[in-house]
Amino acid sequence: MHDTEGVILRLKTAEGHLRGIQRMVEEDAYCIDVIRQIQAVQAALNKVSTQILDEHLNSCLVTAVQGDDPAERQRVLKEIAEVFEAATRV
Amino acid sequence: MHDTEGVILRLKTAEGHLRGIQRMVEEDAYCIDVIRQIQAVQAALNKVSTQILDEHLNSCLVTAVQGDDPAERQRVLKEIAEVFEAATRV
Amino acid sequence: MHDTEGVILRLKTAEGHLRGIQRMVEEDAYCIDVIRQIQAVQAALNKVSTQILDEHLNSCLVTAVQGDDPAERQRVLKEIAEVFEAATRV
Amino acid sequence: MHDTEGVILRLKTAEGHLRGIQRMVEEDAYCIDVIRQIQAVQAALNKVSTQILDEHLNSCLVTAVQGDDPAERQRVLKEIAEVFEAATRV
Repeated sequence: MHDTEGVILRLKTAEGHLRGIQRMVEEDAYCIDVIRQIQAVQAALNKVSTQILDEHLNSCLVTAVQGDDPAERQRVLKEIAEVFEAATRV
Repeated sequence: MHDTEGVILRLKTAEGHLRGIQRMVEEDAYCIDVIRQIQAVQAALNKVSTQILDEHLNSCLVTAVQGDDPAERQRVLKEIAEVFEAATRV
Repeated sequence: MHDTEGVILRLKTAEGHLRGIQRMVEEDAYCIDVIRQIQAVQAALNKVSTQILDEHLNSCLVTAVQGDDPAERQRVLKEIAEVFEAATRV
Repeated sequence: MHDTEGVILRLKTAEGHLRGIQRMVEEDAYCIDVIRQIQAVQAALNKVSTQILDEHLNSCLVTAVQGDDPAERQRVLKEIAEVFEAATRV
């Protein structure tokens, strides 16, 4: 991954957000507000996933598709379809 | 697209499913049952999208990445990240 | 359901949209454009589901929660949690 | 919320999972594996949201719907439709 620091920063922010949500629950915050904050964390995680996929496409995938190993190329292409399918269900 | 007929068949099935849901609504079916049927159509559409993406990766993407035009390659890779991001929000 | 006509109109629009997507596939449209149109149909279906749930909450749910049958009330509340959980996965 | 401890435990687990993902990124793990782990966290968060909604339906919502304040009832019902709509987009 190229922008390792950027990705870790975003993950750390999401982690801090989750800790804040635990405090909300401890302090008996309104349920709907808690759900909204969880949805905000998930939206942030969607963005991190997209950024990581973007980097993956521009590095590993390009290498695999331009490379000499058809099995490796198939594997890399199949994985992308798989995380896409999983994304539609998450 | 390679399996054009398979994709059209799946889309036709989803279309027929949507017509059936309209009849349910006309016949005053229970709301929750209607919502569950709509969710079933969406799950089916997720599968069609994944199939189309899979074919796209194995044809257009391979061509673009192995080709001589860096701008074209960038465009194709960017589109995949975009539909992935959209998938996480749909 | 109160706004039966509104819901049917939206479902008919989604159905027409799906037919248009079949034509796109027949005419060999660009895969990514097809996926984007499918995602647009899914976003429209999300709106119909939300409208139906909204009507359900304001009618069936109110009746069940104000009614005398605790088992019926439990059933109705459980169904809402179930379609919510399914929504997070679709 | 009734099962405050259960909810906090699940949120803590998700938080620990996110920390593990940061380590993966630091140790230069394969991008697709990282994305899959993020999707696993999101699936876990979907379950927490559903549990919280379930508790909310069985407490606040029942109180509001059986109560004397129509504006309060409207507010509570509207919020549920809103988090449902947001769930379909997350």
